[in-house]
Amino acid sequence: MALDPVELTSALVRCPSVTPLEAGALELLEKTLSEAGFSCVRVDRNGTPNLFARWGDKAAPRTLGFNGHTDVVPVGDEAVWTVDPFGGEIKDGKLWGRGATDMKSGVAAFVAAACDYTTRNQPDETAIIISITGDEEGDATDGSIALLDYMEEAGEKMSVCLVGEPTCPNTMGEMIKIGRRGSITGYFTAHGTQGHVAYPHQTLNPVPALAKLMSDLSEHCLDQGTEHFDPSNLEVTTFDVGNAATNVVPATAQATVNIRFNDAHSGASLSDWMRAKAKAVSEKTGVAIDVSFQISGESFLTPPGRFVDLVAEAVAKSTGVTPELSTTGGTSDARFIKNHCPVVEFGLVGKTMHKVDEHVEVAHITALKDVYSSLIGDYFA
Amino acid sequence: MALDPVELTSALVRCPSVTPLEAGALELLEKTLSEAGFSCVRVDRNGTPNLFARWGDKAAPRTLGFNGHTDVVPVGDEAVWTVDPFGGEIKDGKLWGRGATDMKSGVAAFVAAACDYTTRNQPDETAIIISITGDEEGDATDGSIALLDYMEEAGEKMSVCLVGEPTCPNTMGEMIKIGRRGSITGYFTAHGTQGHVAYPHQTLNPVPALAKLMSDLSEHCLDQGTEHFDPSNLEVTTFDVGNAATNVVPATAQATVNIRFNDAHSGASLSDWMRAKAKAVSEKTGVAIDVSFQISGESFLTPPGRFVDLVAEAVAKSTGVTPELSTTGGTSDARFIKNHCPVVEFGLVGKTMHKVDEHVEVAHITALKDVYSSLIGDYFA
Repeated sequence: MALDPVELTSALVRCPSVTPLEAGALELLEKTLSEAGFSCVRVDRNGTPNLFARWGDKAAPRTLGFNGHTDVVPVGDEAVWTVDPFGGEIKDGKLWGRGATDMKSGVAAFVAAACDYTTRNQPDETAIIISITGDEEGDATDGSIALLDYMEEAGEKMSVCLVGEPTCPNTMGEMIKIGRRGSITGYFTAHGTQGHVAYPHQTLNPVPALAKLMSDLSEHCLDQGTEHFDPSNLEVTTFDVGNAATNVVPATAQATVNIRFNDAHSGASLSDWMRAKAKAVSEKTGVAIDVSFQISGESFLTPPGRFVDLVAEAVAKSTGVTPELSTTGGTSDARFIKNHCPVVEFGLVGKTMHKVDEHVEVAHITALKDVYSSLIGDYFA
Repeated sequence: MALDPVELTSALVRCPSVTPLEAGALELLEKTLSEAGFSCVRVDRNGTPNLFARWGDKAAPRTLGFNGHTDVVPVGDEAVWTVDPFGGEIKDGKLWGRGATDMKSGVAAFVAAACDYTTRNQPDETAIIISITGDEEGDATDGSIALLDYMEEAGEKMSVCLVGEPTCPNTMGEMIKIGRRGSITGYFTAHGTQGHVAYPHQTLNPVPALAKLMSDLSEHCLDQGTEHFDPSNLEVTTFDVGNAATNVVPATAQATVNIRFNDAHSGASLSDWMRAKAKAVSEKTGVAIDVSFQISGESFLTPPGRFVDLVAEAVAKSTGVTPELSTTGGTSDARFIKNHCPVVEFGLVGKTMHKVDEHVEVAHITALKDVYSSLIGDYFA
């Protein structure tokens, strides 16, 4: 009997796997995949639970990968929920609970599609690798990275990989993500000399210098967008001094900048640019400005081609919608997988993810499993 | 027997008159002045204690005023003091305690000088008005203002007034203040639209707009100084957002600006200027910026002339130092008195005011009383 992706989603939602807890979710998937012929290995690292599963031969020339996560963000104020966040209840054609959209349904859909295939077919120079992490919503340092490290060491190799994160803004099927912008955060601290505003020659105010720098950075046009990417975008996310005394020039000021950047830039090129801008303001004002950077991910692109086409065709067949090939939105674990093999993302409508009363249309889960089944069939055809 | 200004300072320091407490200080002065022929009235308002004292006729054509305060700033961490802050102890040629410099010694010096004069002379178309407040270090709303309101109502009129605040940066006698810059504080709140940095078209970031405004305001040269004043000066005293999430565009940003301005400007002209600058940035960016202002005082000047000359001569005679006529530094109650009559400030070296182990050279108190005595004699000569 075929595995029901809706029942599996519901069972997964009932596991309270708030990041990085496993809470029975990976155990359930390990059992399910093992019964369908997968070899499973738990790849836990530093307390983070991860599951690796392969069907078919390690040396198979065509290995289709699926990646997802079972950890979920916290419930927040449970009193505001109108349903049990870990009930997995089905009501009014919707399945309710934390992780219903992001992304237990996506995991359930590709696991169900894969098990359908493996129970009906013999591997013939084909293989399926399913990697599922318990740390995508947290620091993500011991999640998909640990799984990829394991694959590297164990000689496991995906030819291509599909990440099952929600990708559709409003309508099921409307968007495939074929890349993502990179993300870099810059931390700036300006150091002046504190003193009384009435004696300005004894002070050096760091605030105007940092304000000038933030204004300059914000006004600069990074690019006009590239073939597959929107324009890069810079936001000053905070600016803090914390001086309540209106007669005092403060000693320090801090600001943070985040840039989501396309393939016209790199983390290194943007670090250099921000450092140079800070240096120019420092030299003009005499205010020393410390700078440090955190690069969360470089931009990447899986250019349109056979794999992207297969995903798009599978989506169109199951949903009747021709998907847009997009590189918009936030980051996902695809930013790690792209170093391993071409990666494409397709999943549900993400509207309720991370929100109170998170839910998914039951029909969308079924359709998503259908898309993944088509993809598996077509990829191995 | 002449009143000893050092003993009087010590007695006043022993009154723990932390603003706005009276703690016996005004009582002591009322008794002292009454004994020397002054008519005294307590002009308390909204719980703030104030003392008004007049010697001579209300209608006298020459009425010399003295103004000061007996309230002091808090001790802070008393454990750090090496002396009793309210001990008034004399040691190593110095008198120690909170208010020793700011400004119980100043009050004691002019009270002693005035009592010396009144006990030895008859009023002859001359009068002395002494006004002492218990709220200069606090909000100052019911202090010298209340005393001036009382004078207005009671038909009391000073021809000129000397404020006995510390005015000398390092050396006794080096500086007379013949005016003060004005002070205006501007409060700016920029309102944008919060959202995820990855979806900038759904957000409006208020930080760059406010940073641009603060940078513009700071870079503008208000003036080059005027005949008796340093250049006006603007400081951004704080800039706050308080957004810890590097992937979120914040909804609001706040900044505060303080301007110390000379007689080329007024609170109104600077309010207009800042409001116009904010409006220009708003129109360019679409970010609404709320603005409000607090004018602590307008700039004022008592131009060099007979009264200023008399003070300068008295200082030179008693200290051997030719004082500079200055308009630098912070605000004082002279900003209220200047609406009533010409006002000049002269007092001690202010180095230890508001600090731990506040103290004054005993010799400086004696010299200061001498200056005030000379001034009284010369003014009435």
